[in-house]
Amino acid sequence: MKLHNYFRSSASFRVRIALELKGLSYEYVPVHLVKGEHKQGEFAAKSANGLVPMLELDGGERLAQSMAIIEYLDETHPEPALLPKDALGRAHVRSLAQSIACEIHPLNNLRVLKYLVREMKVDEEAKNTWYRHWVRDGLLAFERELSQLPQGTYCYGDTPTLADCCLVPQIFNGKRFNVDFSGMDRTMAAFDACMKHPAFQKAQPSNCPDNEP
Amino acid sequence: MKLHNYFRSSASFRVRIALELKGLSYEYVPVHLVKGEHKQGEFAAKSANGLVPMLELDGGERLAQSMAIIEYLDETHPEPALLPKDALGRAHVRSLAQSIACEIHPLNNLRVLKYLVREMKVDEEAKNTWYRHWVRDGLLAFERELSQLPQGTYCYGDTPTLADCCLVPQIFNGKRFNVDFSGMDRTMAAFDACMKHPAFQKAQPSNCPDNEP
Repeated sequence: MKLHNYFRSSASFRVRIALELKGLSYEYVPVHLVKGEHKQGEFAAKSANGLVPMLELDGGERLAQSMAIIEYLDETHPEPALLPKDALGRAHVRSLAQSIACEIHPLNNLRVLKYLVREMKVDEEAKNTWYRHWVRDGLLAFERELSQLPQGTYCYGDTPTLADCCLVPQIFNGKRFNVDFSGMDRTMAAFDACMKHPAFQKAQPSNCPDNEP
Repeated sequence: MKLHNYFRSSASFRVRIALELKGLSYEYVPVHLVKGEHKQGEFAAKSANGLVPMLELDGGERLAQSMAIIEYLDETHPEPALLPKDALGRAHVRSLAQSIACEIHPLNNLRVLKYLVREMKVDEEAKNTWYRHWVRDGLLAFERELSQLPQGTYCYGDTPTLADCCLVPQIFNGKRFNVDFSGMDRTMAAFDACMKHPAFQKAQPSNCPDNEP
């Protein structure tokens, strides 16, 4: 398997965590988003949407969208499971993951921030306010969602799930922009638990071959 | 089952389609987003994230996030299936759905458009340009993703899937903002096929009890 990804991309980080949790080896193919490598050459020719991550299977099939890739990995390599066994538990975990992947991250990714600056002529401060607004607002909603569920070590239960794969990169991202994480005790406790787990440690941006300090 | 939703909400529309495809009856509970009903009263007390749709099960459990809800319905009422049987097919369908739910819709929903106008003081024309940019750009990527897959009646194969549940509301939404849909033949053919299907017809905004012409 080849994972086309970028060390700082949150969505790439999600898939790297899942691969480490599953203990699956893969070839790391860096795609430098800031240099525009996703829009040119081999990657652009292979990718339909020009986005990372893209998982290229040994048979040549190419998969896009981090949550779809993680569910594929979970279905084809069931242990350790990244989703609960029961339908209700699965719905809660998917909902938590989507609270981040559909409500927060799309508003703060690189191409959206670029559009605000280049096309809308928004200044640096307004861009950062926008960023922090959606991340903090979204994580407070995530905290309320968590607080309606039984407490566990991680977001849902005592083993990492798809929800944790999505949460950790979002917190990393928020820290870069100095987001205020107060009032999110359950969320930050799950984050802290994840960061003690070797899979999350190994997958983090600073351990990527294309990391830039 | 009760579906808390709003006639014009794309994410609500996705779940209504799935319920109709499965032939499941439900109580329609309108939540008027423009009047701010999601932030007050009974709905706000029940909802963790203040977003529609929310599916309330007969046992009292509450589920959020449209794609999580649809997968729950598909797991608990397997026929007709809204995801293919094979892992690779499931990955492609989820990826198509997420191309809309994670790349397009989050940038054009009501609260984001409101933020642009109220907080960023963006004028009407710039707001509409933003809207059309992300919808057209995202649907062109969707078209490229479709073009790498075998052609069928719908987005994936000859029966409606989760991908169609997400596509149709996005096209409805785009039509309201006069998005240019040229160069997306496969996408629009799937949309047209869906709109001939009674489930998609029944679920559309104009058939909702809270519809405003």
